[in-house]
Amino acid sequence: MSPTSRTPQRRGRRPGAPATRATILKAARRSFAESGFAGTTIRGVAAKAGVDASLVHHYFGTKDDLFLAAMELPVDPRQVIAPAIAGGVEGAGERLLRAFLSLWDDPEISPVLVGVVRSSLQPGGERLLSQGIFPVLVFPVGEALGIDRPDVRMPLVISQIAGLILTRYLIGLEPIASMPADELVATFAPVIQHYLAADLP
Amino acid sequence: MSPTSRTPQRRGRRPGAPATRATILKAARRSFAESGFAGTTIRGVAAKAGVDASLVHHYFGTKDDLFLAAMELPVDPRQVIAPAIAGGVEGAGERLLRAFLSLWDDPEISPVLVGVVRSSLQPGGERLLSQGIFPVLVFPVGEALGIDRPDVRMPLVISQIAGLILTRYLIGLEPIASMPADELVATFAPVIQHYLAADLP
Repeated sequence: MSPTSRTPQRRGRRPGAPATRATILKAARRSFAESGFAGTTIRGVAAKAGVDASLVHHYFGTKDDLFLAAMELPVDPRQVIAPAIAGGVEGAGERLLRAFLSLWDDPEISPVLVGVVRSSLQPGGERLLSQGIFPVLVFPVGEALGIDRPDVRMPLVISQIAGLILTRYLIGLEPIASMPADELVATFAPVIQHYLAADLP
Repeated sequence: MSPTSRTPQRRGRRPGAPATRATILKAARRSFAESGFAGTTIRGVAAKAGVDASLVHHYFGTKDDLFLAAMELPVDPRQVIAPAIAGGVEGAGERLLRAFLSLWDDPEISPVLVGVVRSSLQPGGERLLSQGIFPVLVFPVGEALGIDRPDVRMPLVISQIAGLILTRYLIGLEPIASMPADELVATFAPVIQHYLAADLP
């Protein structure tokens, strides 16, 4: 953002692209926080930001894209997950876990994700997960893999991944916190695969 | 606590048992919160409460007992877990899960436990788990079952139980949040049993 674009006395046309992007992102973050993912619309974010809805689409694409942009991750997690899905359900537990670790073990990305999880675990914060991250990032994995009962299996996968996030990244429980990626994969991938593909009770 | 024991102008002898118990519990809670489980001593709590250490022992027993008393659960979770351990490692996954559910699905106990978990997931709060609940309640289970590598297996069990707590009780993720106990046991007990007894990588 240039110093000029921050001056509060500006008049006439809205400032250039970087400032407008930032204004939209700020409005989006406020809307996701206040109204949840389901209660947020591109139109509403545009109104909050004082721009036209087409500009929000132009900069950010869909509401899913805007949601992920508002998290300010240095990568789009969907691009990291996509190759893990492409191989089909066989071995998907291991590939998904490796994709997961490539994001969560990245020292630039991990603190952002830890922050997201911490806020989502406070009372009322669960909407960020149930209305945002799960439908945008997690449930599409089950659909893309073509597994039966993705509505049951993906929550089971989430339960084990959530426990891994908690022990490894939030509370630092040893030996999980310091396990090398290969050992983590050898330990947890069979359970993820079980939830993806084994008979359900 | 009687009205008399609450008057701030009291002199001479300390008030009767209920008020002293409450004073000790308050001091214990402050100490566990400020210094963690490891940094708390019976002697220190006694000093904070202005009573003799023997009185703390008399009312509460060991430091483990005092820690659990400070959580103010209507039952001692160790007594709930004990029968699940007694049967040995075979079937322990199922028995432990049923003991777990009998506590967490109890509408009187659940809110207290949810509160404990929420605080422990805030920055710095993990000591309540790593220095309190795990050594007092969880790790003794592995030792009592006589499993090999309890130092690895119990954290793996914790990872799945933590994910169950998160999805069922903290964020209410369906279908896990509404699953009847029997279906939960059928779903998760094989994974708990796997972590307790299957070959480690």
